[in-house]
Amino acid sequence: MIKSRAAVAFEAKKPLEIVEVDVVMPKAGEVLLRVVASGVCHTDAYTLSGADPEGIFPSILGHEGGAIVEAIGEGVTSVAVGDHVIPLYTPECGQCKFCKSGKTNLCQAIRATQGKGLMPDGTSRFSYKGETIFHYMGTSTFSEYTVLPEISVAKIPKEAPLEKVCLLGCGVTTGIGAVLNTAKVKPGDTVAIFGLGGIGLSAVIGAVKAKAARIIAIDINPAKFEIAKQLGATDCVNPKDFDRPIQEVIVDMTDGGVDFSFECIGNVQLMRAALECCHKGWGESVIIGVAGAGQEIATRPFQLVTGRVWRGSAFGGVRGRTELPSYVEMAATGEIPLDTFITHTMGLEDINKAFDLMHEGKSIRTVIHF
Amino acid sequence: MIKSRAAVAFEAKKPLEIVEVDVVMPKAGEVLLRVVASGVCHTDAYTLSGADPEGIFPSILGHEGGAIVEAIGEGVTSVAVGDHVIPLYTPECGQCKFCKSGKTNLCQAIRATQGKGLMPDGTSRFSYKGETIFHYMGTSTFSEYTVLPEISVAKIPKEAPLEKVCLLGCGVTTGIGAVLNTAKVKPGDTVAIFGLGGIGLSAVIGAVKAKAARIIAIDINPAKFEIAKQLGATDCVNPKDFDRPIQEVIVDMTDGGVDFSFECIGNVQLMRAALECCHKGWGESVIIGVAGAGQEIATRPFQLVTGRVWRGSAFGGVRGRTELPSYVEMAATGEIPLDTFITHTMGLEDINKAFDLMHEGKSIRTVIHF
Repeated sequence: MIKSRAAVAFEAKKPLEIVEVDVVMPKAGEVLLRVVASGVCHTDAYTLSGADPEGIFPSILGHEGGAIVEAIGEGVTSVAVGDHVIPLYTPECGQCKFCKSGKTNLCQAIRATQGKGLMPDGTSRFSYKGETIFHYMGTSTFSEYTVLPEISVAKIPKEAPLEKVCLLGCGVTTGIGAVLNTAKVKPGDTVAIFGLGGIGLSAVIGAVKAKAARIIAIDINPAKFEIAKQLGATDCVNPKDFDRPIQEVIVDMTDGGVDFSFECIGNVQLMRAALECCHKGWGESVIIGVAGAGQEIATRPFQLVTGRVWRGSAFGGVRGRTELPSYVEMAATGEIPLDTFITHTMGLEDINKAFDLMHEGKSIRTVIHF
Repeated sequence: MIKSRAAVAFEAKKPLEIVEVDVVMPKAGEVLLRVVASGVCHTDAYTLSGADPEGIFPSILGHEGGAIVEAIGEGVTSVAVGDHVIPLYTPECGQCKFCKSGKTNLCQAIRATQGKGLMPDGTSRFSYKGETIFHYMGTSTFSEYTVLPEISVAKIPKEAPLEKVCLLGCGVTTGIGAVLNTAKVKPGDTVAIFGLGGIGLSAVIGAVKAKAARIIAIDINPAKFEIAKQLGATDCVNPKDFDRPIQEVIVDMTDGGVDFSFECIGNVQLMRAALECCHKGWGESVIIGVAGAGQEIATRPFQLVTGRVWRGSAFGGVRGRTELPSYVEMAATGEIPLDTFITHTMGLEDINKAFDLMHEGKSIRTVIHF
């Protein structure tokens, strides 16, 4: 057992508390990681808000990390002590029906226990004053030390700056992957992106990489437009500037609708708008945002019968252990400008400020340096 | 102008009346057809019921015809007098953005006027005692003579029996095409088909042609199961035999869900069930049925984010003029057993009986012989 400084969410709607937790050493098939940096993502805030029906407390949040392997459990062969890794909330076992299908990145090997805030053996590695602290998304990167299953870490080159590539552990990969892997946008396509947070801006990067001819960036906060344009958006649209539904505005702008749209917020009304702004006959809409508990999407079935397609994407359809290293490579060459996303950095002791900045819409990403 | 015996829908919810209408000879780009046979489809009944918001009266219904070209208008080159054709409610102009895209069969060349019950020049070719009678779905096959745009007829071999291949003008092609063209079912896939009317049974045929490993046929009328099995369904399920949602039943039967599902009725609750019985990670659901006016589909977006895909299909994604002849060929070789669908035949004077049989669930298809 080792001591670790961590930001613990003791209960929903309360600030995180910086305390020293106890961490049990990794068991068979597990690794102990020293977290070097972690992004703070909207999903952390969503769970902390109490709106996440799967939220468990007390727990250690955080899922966008850059880390170094400090110790390995029995039987671990794919990584060694000293390796640099990105924790994966979507593991890749390579053995389950899902991994073997070749059709999805949604490895289900440890889904049941991960959803309960536990390691695959059904127990937690974290405790505070003898009380169990639960894991979160299988990653818990708001702790100096964390324990993960071997199948939940992507090994990356040691040259990669962990305090930047940590962002590839969630938002940036999610946005780019949704465009390239899920939608498979082709050169010349027209794309609409709803919501210009970290995921939406990453989708802009993905659309540029796919050589989309037109990239329409949509947000009700025009302060986001400058960076969207800098990244390659060709048009920026504020729905508040119109007194008719945004889907009609986009359809009119594009002679019938876009080839692909992406919902990057988690708003079920926008998910509908994103579908309905797609071109009749072939337009496809991809849901990336996570909606509130129990919320539903709706549309007239005629929208689909006349050729539109509705799909979704989780972690950009990216298989973490096999594909994430290529994203690290793209960051190294500058194809993925991670610096653009990092608006703030701070120490773990200031992590509640990072949540405040996010709620106030003042940050794209804050990266916590340990 | 010629005289034509026709079944006219003078108003919604009333029986059709057999009268002699006047038919104006075809104008430029149009053809006069002599209808030899026409199937009676649920969509005709839907419009006659008054529930179709696009329904226009008085009109001549019918859209599943087999016909012979009797005269051609100026400039018509793709068909000649004496050619055998199947009328197309989805035309194929080959020139519009949709046809040129190569991504859809939804030619929009004459969409606006067809939706108003008119020919492309904005007028009708039908009248009765001097009063305009409107076209229906651009086909109006419940008339001995009808006029269509040249782009709305598929030329077929003269050997093909018009009183049978008329069914390829709608339901049979819709069901088979949704499986082969829209879903692209692969050998070994698991398929669920909701609703065993003409379209659902055709989807069974499509799934057999695609070499699906398991074909689950679902209907609340077990009288449909014998023919479904005869056509190749491997499992038949009656939702009334279970006290839990049918999607759960199918998921349990298939170790996590089906690869593809098809909704062949037009019931928005079943559309949801069809989506939710798809396998996490890759299952795709295709809506074929036409829902009532204003009705909406709904689900939790999580269903899509975790990899399910929701799409739709119109006329099976089949391009009428270029692809329908291959369906006629499949009927000729027996690959599409049209005889199985034709449960009743009768003369035009008995057409209201065909609607009664359909409402009572006693027929798959009645074919009207002129």
